[in-house]
Parts: sequence; structure tokens; C-alpha cells
Amino acid sequence: MLLAQRLKNLGTETAFAVSEAAAAWKAQGHKVYPFHLGDLNIPTPANIVEAQNRAIANRKTGYAPAAGIPELRAALADDVGRQRGLHLSPENVVIQPGGKPVVTKFIQTVMEPGDEVLYPNPGYPIYESQIDYFGGVALPYRFVQTPAGFQIDREHLESLITPRTRILIYNNCQNPLGADSTPEEMQWLADLALRHNLWVLSDEAYFEMRYSGVSQSIASLPGMQERTVILYTFSKKYAMTGWRLGAAIGPRELVAAIARLNTNDESCTAHFVQWAGVEALCGDQSGAHQILETLRERRDVAVEALQAIPGVSLQKPETTFYLFPNVTGAMRRLGYTDVAQFADAALRNTDVSFCTRKHFGRPQPGETEHYVRFAYSGIDTDDIRAGLSRLKDWIASAG
Amino acid sequence: MLLAQRLKNLGTETAFAVSEAAAAWKAQGHKVYPFHLGDLNIPTPANIVEAQNRAIANRKTGYAPAAGIPELRAALADDVGRQRGLHLSPENVVIQPGGKPVVTKFIQTVMEPGDEVLYPNPGYPIYESQIDYFGGVALPYRFVQTPAGFQIDREHLESLITPRTRILIYNNCQNPLGADSTPEEMQWLADLALRHNLWVLSDEAYFEMRYSGVSQSIASLPGMQERTVILYTFSKKYAMTGWRLGAAIGPRELVAAIARLNTNDESCTAHFVQWAGVEALCGDQSGAHQILETLRERRDVAVEALQAIPGVSLQKPETTFYLFPNVTGAMRRLGYTDVAQFADAALRNTDVSFCTRKHFGRPQPGETEHYVRFAYSGIDTDDIRAGLSRLKDWIASAG
Repeated sequence: MLLAQRLKNLGTETAFAVSEAAAAWKAQGHKVYPFHLGDLNIPTPANIVEAQNRAIANRKTGYAPAAGIPELRAALADDVGRQRGLHLSPENVVIQPGGKPVVTKFIQTVMEPGDEVLYPNPGYPIYESQIDYFGGVALPYRFVQTPAGFQIDREHLESLITPRTRILIYNNCQNPLGADSTPEEMQWLADLALRHNLWVLSDEAYFEMRYSGVSQSIASLPGMQERTVILYTFSKKYAMTGWRLGAAIGPRELVAAIARLNTNDESCTAHFVQWAGVEALCGDQSGAHQILETLRERRDVAVEALQAIPGVSLQKPETTFYLFPNVTGAMRRLGYTDVAQFADAALRNTDVSFCTRKHFGRPQPGETEHYVRFAYSGIDTDDIRAGLSRLKDWIASAG
Repeated sequence: MLLAQRLKNLGTETAFAVSEAAAAWKAQGHKVYPFHLGDLNIPTPANIVEAQNRAIANRKTGYAPAAGIPELRAALADDVGRQRGLHLSPENVVIQPGGKPVVTKFIQTVMEPGDEVLYPNPGYPIYESQIDYFGGVALPYRFVQTPAGFQIDREHLESLITPRTRILIYNNCQNPLGADSTPEEMQWLADLALRHNLWVLSDEAYFEMRYSGVSQSIASLPGMQERTVILYTFSKKYAMTGWRLGAAIGPRELVAAIARLNTNDESCTAHFVQWAGVEALCGDQSGAHQILETLRERRDVAVEALQAIPGVSLQKPETTFYLFPNVTGAMRRLGYTDVAQFADAALRNTDVSFCTRKHFGRPQPGETEHYVRFAYSGIDTDDIRAGLSRLKDWIASAG
């Protein structure tokens, strides 16, 4: 029995192969230092769990409205609006089973087949997959490494635009780079979107995972709210990755269309989980603060340890829980030219597991430097120290 | 800002409008007898809730594998295989956030644009919507009312088949009819699928909602397993509609393709909810038995009360929690020719709320009899008696 041709255009997250390799290595009796996981090994705050239990006791076990319970839509409109300086109503919010569903639903809602879509590369691999799957033309834009961190290569981005360009996907507080825009870069992007009449998906999954400064949303810039959909997730701030709770926040007409997709695709997001979300937003915030402090400590340890490794260079990012060091020099010392082989050898020689640039979208022509991604969300400080010390010894022993 | 053209082909569940009308009537200070709800007003068994809490305490709050946790895939392979006489392995099972996602994912996985898809009408409205949305040709097949209950109109179904017909959607234990196939009807369908090389979606949402006899799956007939995907849901048997937990069960290659859709669409189903599902399948079954007994009592009361209403006719179904009476005579007594107007008048005159045939797919040419759907899953026995008594008085007072 044959499967449908459209599946040939469906990508995936190849990073799962890294998890499998790490698990196989562990199964052989080795310790693994898991820097590959974009997940948190931190418990969800207790008040959120308790709110879910109260909801179940109150019989919130039947269907919820397709767009989400009114209480959560209102709480998100308030919280997201206040943090971003936007006026939002519940009709601007449609609840999702996670942040990820916003990507496919946004693309289905605004993209025609043949439309060109600008998206960050390296970046979250599902952008590319969903553009391809629904018949769009994926136009990757790239970043340059500067002394101030990664910045969008504006000249290159602008050179990609044609009359068919219709959508810009923007992930400030970026996975995997840990990059965040200067206000000037964000304004430049907004001007571009206005000039070319683009829809914008603003993936703000890491908006509140910030160790200094204040995040800003591109939706808050003049003229942008009507053309921007914010991807919101509870996953990171509240350590709720496995709860599957998020939202699309945007213009009412588009939000209504996404709610109709909800009715078709999954009926609704788990009912009591939505009540847990209300508590997350409106209840005691000390759990979220503690999560961020834990991550800050890990970041400081990881950055210092990586910077001490010969042939590894990175700046300290002020956002996300990812580090994206340039490892070209380290690879040269050890004689590797392929970053996947380097990562595999690192696991076998040091028990340290991480993803590479190749897991974050199709590599672009002209890339000469090699990068890998370390996530510090799923590994404790002691193991960060121990693992990166082993990595340093391995690399330093060569050359 | 324009939305994409494909949304024009996306249907919805119009039954939500009935819920809204009922809520508006209630808000005016009226009592409502809610026969429109395809939801359960029965709590989820306590052992399932407790298993979820244990899972959260055990840190099952991070991401789960895209295809589902191995323990739940194995438990479903065992349970579904045993009940249906199939040999299934975990690789035949991919977990979903509900039964509904199986519809869209099955269609995306096997249907090419232009393929013709046979589907039951009246039936679950999402079949029609998803066939249209992904560019298929929706071919509704119909039912005839016989003294033994509703049966598929085989001559009509066979007349629909062309060389482009590629898929059969089959919902034995049928919503909204409450119909179930004789073994002979099911074998006839299987022969048809084999003769025309069709994929089959076997929507088995109500497989275990049966008051007498034993359900059979079309997948268990010779030659069928390799071409059949079973839609499984925890929603009905365990009163877990709002938990959003289900599965697609079918050939390995197709299951792998659906798991890739999971990776793209929602990452995974809520992690701890999957552990609740393991308990539902493997733990104490007394909760599920009590749910079925409660529904049986309601069915008996509702069928008897409806059969006593002049101009209303129905057989007692042995499955689902729906009744689909013919109300042509009652409408004639009261002077209605439009079933939607009849339902609206019933709400205003008797406080009884129900759906009509129009909520279950596009009405077909040549339909002369009028039907409505009563669900008894969301209303207690006393209210069933009281509501249907009021309905009887209203109808009997005319003519």
C-alpha cells in the first residue's frame, strides 16, 4: 500500500538521532553528559501541578472550547500584552497543545503554495519542514558572528526578497544561536516587513528566558501588530515542555481561522492543563524565577568552561538556554573536517553529547566555519563542569 | 492582510452552534436538557487520575518521544490486539492527542489530491472537512433504516466507486446513528476494499461502548490488517474526552509517517497523560464498567421515552451513546418542514436541546425523512425523563 507523495516534502527534527546515539552509548555502560537536550531537567513549580489537580477535582475533564478556555485566553491577553506593550483581547489568543503547533497553523493560515518564506537558518528545523510541506518556497536567511554576538546578515536577507516573498519568520532570542536583536536590528526587520507587506511569525518561545536586559516583541513596533503572529509557549519559563501548552496570538480573523484548524485537528488542548496555565500566569511566580536563576548559574559555568577550551570560541548570550560555539579550531586540532564526525568522536572519547549546526536546517552554500549547539537546560552544574573538563582534555591533548 | 485560499476548503463542526444556542437559552434563566453534547458528564476513574499524579511526581513533565512512550504503545498493542484478535507490536501504534488527530493524519498520509474517498454521511463531520481540505473528492455513502436498525446502502455505495476511489472511511458503532454492522455487512465492506485496493480508516471510537454482543474490527478480517488504520481513543470508555489521548494503529510504515507528522505538528502528546493511559488500560477496570452501566441505564430510559412520543420512531441501538430518531411525523404534526427550525422550537418550547441530521455532513439529494440526534452521555437519568416528557407533551399537544 502506497503512502502519499506529500510526505516526501515533510522534514523532521534530526536532533532526535543525537538522543538515540546518546541513549545507545549509555546503554553500553557509559556515562553521558547530555548537552543535546532542548528540554529541562527541572520540575514544574508545585503551584501549577496543584492547580491542575484542583481542575480535575472540579470536573474539568470534558472537552474545552476549540480556541481554549476563556480564562486562559484572557490571562494570556493580559500577561503577553503587558510584557510587550500591546493591547490584546481574548479574541487575539488561541490556545494550542504546545508552541510548536503555531508553526504549522500559521503557515497553513497565511501561506499560499509558491509563496516565498524567509526563515532563520540555522534555526528551528520545523520552519523549513512546514514551508516545504505546504508547498511554499523556503528562503533561508543567515547570521554573521560579530564581537557583539550573532547578527542577521541584512544585506543577504534583503537580496532574497522578490515579489513572491510573503512571510518572514523571526525568532528573536534564537534557538540555536542564543542571539537577540539590537533594537535597531528589530526595527530594520519591521521596516522590511512593512515595505514588502509581509506576514511575520514572531517565535517568542524564549522571550522570558533572559538573564539581563528586557525583551521586546516586533509586534509592538508601529504598524506591526496587524501583520504579526506571536508564538507563545509555557514550556520554557515554567518547565512545562511535556505538558504541551502554548498559544498563537495575533489578529482576530487569523486567530479565528486557527481555532477552526483546532476543531479539525485535535478538538482542543487538554482541559485541565489549561487551568494549570491560568495558575502559571496568575499565581506565584517564584517557581519561574528559580528556574531562570538555575539556568543562569548553568550558563555562567558552561560559557566559562567552553571559553577555556582551545579552538572553541563563543560570546556569552543573554538569552535562551543554548550556546552555539565555533569549533572550527578544535576540529582542526583533532583532524576533523566533518562536524558530525567530530560530535560522534566527542561522545565516544569524552561522553559529552551535543547537536551540531546540521540539526538546525539545511546548511547553506559558503559556510566555512563549524558550529555545534550545547544546551544547558537538561544537565546540572556539576555535570556541566565535569563533561566540559573532559571535552577540554580531549581537545587539548591534540595539536 | 489576506488569509490563505486553502481555508475555504476547511469545514468545521457546526454542532458547536447548538451548544451556543443552549448556553444562550440557559443564560436567559431557562433550564436546559442537554441532549446535544457528545461529551460525558461522568468523572474519570480515580485510579487514572492518581496514575497521572504519580507520573508528575516522577518527573514525567518533559518531552515524550514523538510516537509516544514505549509503555503506552506496548499496552495498546496488547489491549487492542487482544480485543480484536490481531497480532500487534508497539511499532504498529502511534500515540495522538485524542482520537480526532488520526483523521487528519491518516488522510495526509495516504490521500493524494484528486483521490476519491468514501465516507459515511450522516457521520462525523471532520471526515468531510479533512478530505476537502487536503484536496480529495468526498464521496458520501448513506444508510437505510430497516427493522433491524440502520444499514449501509450497499447498492448506492458500490455505484460511487470509480478507478480514482482509494480510501474507505468506516465508523462501525456509528456516530450519530448508533448503527453497528452485521458480520455479513462488515465482510461485504472488506471484500469491497480488497477488490478495489482501498485504504481503510476504521474509526473505532465506540468499539467498547457496547451494551450487548461483541464488537469486531474490520482489521481482523483476512487481508485487511495491512490496509487498515484503527482510530483508537480513551475518550469514551474511560470518560477522558478532555484529556486528549488516542492513537493511530496500523501498518508500521504508515505509523512511522504519522510519527513524523507528530514531530512536525505537536512534538508529542502530554507526557504524564500517557502514563494515565497506561493505568487506564492495565489497571482496575471497574471505573470503565461503571461508566458503561451508567450509560446503559440512560439509554434504556431515553429509548423508552422517545418511543412513547407520537411521530418519533427509533430502534434501540446496542452501541454508542447516541440515538438517531426519525422525527418526520412529529414535525408534520407541529407543521415544521425544516429540521433546524423544529430543533430550535423544541428548545424554546421544552428546554430540550439536541442536534439534527444537518450537523453530520452535507445532506444528500433525495433525503425525505427528518432525523435528529440525542446524546445521553451528558445528561443524568432524571433529566432524561423530565426533558423527554416535556418534549412528548409539546408534540402530543399538536395534531
